[in-house]
Amino acid sequence: MRPVQGPSIREFGENRIVARFRSLASAALRNDVLVGPGDDAAVLMLGDGPRLLLACDMMVEGTHFRLEWATPWQIGWKAMVQNLSDIAAMGGDPSWAVASLAASGDAAERAVEGIAEGLIAAASRHGAALVGGDVVGSPGPLVVDVAITGSVEKENLLLRSGAQPGDAVLVTGSLGVSAAGLAARQRGLPQAEDAADAALAEALRAHHEPRPRLVEARSIADTRLATAMMDLSDGLAEDLPRLCAASGVGARVLADEIPIARPCSALAGRLGLDALDLAITGGEDYELLLTCPRDRVEQVRAAVSDAAGTPVTPIGDVVAEEEQVVLVDSGGRSRPLGSGFDHFAVPSAVPEQGDSPSAKNF
Amino acid sequence: MRPVQGPSIREFGENRIVARFRSLASAALRNDVLVGPGDDAAVLMLGDGPRLLLACDMMVEGTHFRLEWATPWQIGWKAMVQNLSDIAAMGGDPSWAVASLAASGDAAERAVEGIAEGLIAAASRHGAALVGGDVVGSPGPLVVDVAITGSVEKENLLLRSGAQPGDAVLVTGSLGVSAAGLAARQRGLPQAEDAADAALAEALRAHHEPRPRLVEARSIADTRLATAMMDLSDGLAEDLPRLCAASGVGARVLADEIPIARPCSALAGRLGLDALDLAITGGEDYELLLTCPRDRVEQVRAAVSDAAGTPVTPIGDVVAEEEQVVLVDSGGRSRPLGSGFDHFAVPSAVPEQGDSPSAKNF
Repeated sequence: MRPVQGPSIREFGENRIVARFRSLASAALRNDVLVGPGDDAAVLMLGDGPRLLLACDMMVEGTHFRLEWATPWQIGWKAMVQNLSDIAAMGGDPSWAVASLAASGDAAERAVEGIAEGLIAAASRHGAALVGGDVVGSPGPLVVDVAITGSVEKENLLLRSGAQPGDAVLVTGSLGVSAAGLAARQRGLPQAEDAADAALAEALRAHHEPRPRLVEARSIADTRLATAMMDLSDGLAEDLPRLCAASGVGARVLADEIPIARPCSALAGRLGLDALDLAITGGEDYELLLTCPRDRVEQVRAAVSDAAGTPVTPIGDVVAEEEQVVLVDSGGRSRPLGSGFDHFAVPSAVPEQGDSPSAKNF
Repeated sequence: MRPVQGPSIREFGENRIVARFRSLASAALRNDVLVGPGDDAAVLMLGDGPRLLLACDMMVEGTHFRLEWATPWQIGWKAMVQNLSDIAAMGGDPSWAVASLAASGDAAERAVEGIAEGLIAAASRHGAALVGGDVVGSPGPLVVDVAITGSVEKENLLLRSGAQPGDAVLVTGSLGVSAAGLAARQRGLPQAEDAADAALAEALRAHHEPRPRLVEARSIADTRLATAMMDLSDGLAEDLPRLCAASGVGARVLADEIPIARPCSALAGRLGLDALDLAITGGEDYELLLTCPRDRVEQVRAAVSDAAGTPVTPIGDVVAEEEQVVLVDSGGRSRPLGSGFDHFAVPSAVPEQGDSPSAKNF
């Protein structure tokens, strides 16, 4: 058998690979698959009860984490949180997870145990349970893959595809703090003098120990007012165009309305980066991106505030598909959002850690 | 942050890692987890309906497969079949799967597409669907991880833990064909003169394109006569002791009764290996290992024969735990089975491909 020839993934483009995966898988679905590849989780029919949700997310050493930057516990925690966030994005409650771990024989036993502890801690903290898994030997980097199930009442299900022109675009919390933490790691912060630096500590913590917005998502779903939702795992510049594509709409986002996280603003200058760019292009905030009719914004904000105390900020409007997905700055100039987003940040600021894990979900 | 210190997995022992994983996870389960880590799949309660099953299995290039030996389609097929087999082992029907794939930028696009096609083909062929996944970049080897759900009626659920002294031990089909295929690859077969060699072709096909025993498992479960079941992913010598440990029993297996696959017998001499050893220690046959009361053996055999035409062979008896798990040869001598099983085969015959994936399930 000859080694497989042909163009490499690099040449071919990973987005095309994912599109191909999706199209192959979608052609072979069962009748009980209500939503297949392409949303944050698959939606599956189990009788007349709540829908079952199923998703997975993989993290690879060298691409998504480094053992010099994160503790094993943090790696496990984050691997689980990514998956919990996928369930949140559908308006659901997480239930059971399984995890597979590939490690070389030279990997420290304490590292593997720490990852297990982080996985379990994140699951338990959010009402889920790790119910099984697989540990395999590998000649390569550490790999942690989690698959998770959740449930959602039919009426609470939120997809990426329901946004309509006239809706408002909203985000929970604030953006850019995880990206600021990553940039700090890449630039060798913390230095000794940063030990008492609260902004830095908060950014690092947000990057390594993110929280899924489960309570917020549930309160949004319970209002039954939102029209579309997803989680911000790859940054607004990439994720909003995805939501718009799924809904067949465009969007106008106002740069001045984007809630930039305080640690992001506080650190940007020291990092030589633009805070707004970090907030727009940085991934792994795991905030929720949603749409709802403009006259329902205050009801949604009140529901989330009551349930979780978390702010929800309108950042723009859903428009017709022809108007594309654009960011409008304070001077009224608009730039298209998307994976080729023309940002001001130093180009190496975020891409060094490579693919945000959800970037290639199918 | 300092790199994690401490003993490596190699020093510590992978079995202890898995035991630690299990114990950590088991301490944090929810009430609706009927069976957590330790069986072929977790068993989860979803109202009063059928139980939900959830399992995962990971395959790593260099440990579980080589691109020089298997086509990408075969790699995807086998990754899915391992998981389908876990659902079969519980007496269940597979439903939905997700798959994560890590690949370097240099991996051929056709390889990734072929893996996707194999995953989907195996799922579709057996009534399941691939409903989502993740494709991530990696600096290391190809990794394919599949997680699968299934369902099983309460009364049909078969665990590893129900075997009782006085039961018979049975296996479906015949053993050793996958191990013979692997040994042929390791020894550089096929040579040119083997092109028309039916035994070799069958062994290679069994190794690279295994079939899950779903119809057989379902027919066994429907009899409600079996007391315990699991799939043979790591070979009888390792898997029977696991079933016995879960049930708190011992077993006496008669070497002369073990159904050795014809291609295994036909190839063993040429491979310089003992056919019985291949049948006992070789993994990845994905046959079913089960127990049932001795006076019900014929009913179980008839049910499987009617449903699938597959033979079911009694190979020994369940005995008290104190009698251990032993293999009795034609001269009446008994040797203990287990991971340290003292076999005749050339030591490098099977271990070269390393861990069979299910060996470290938790």
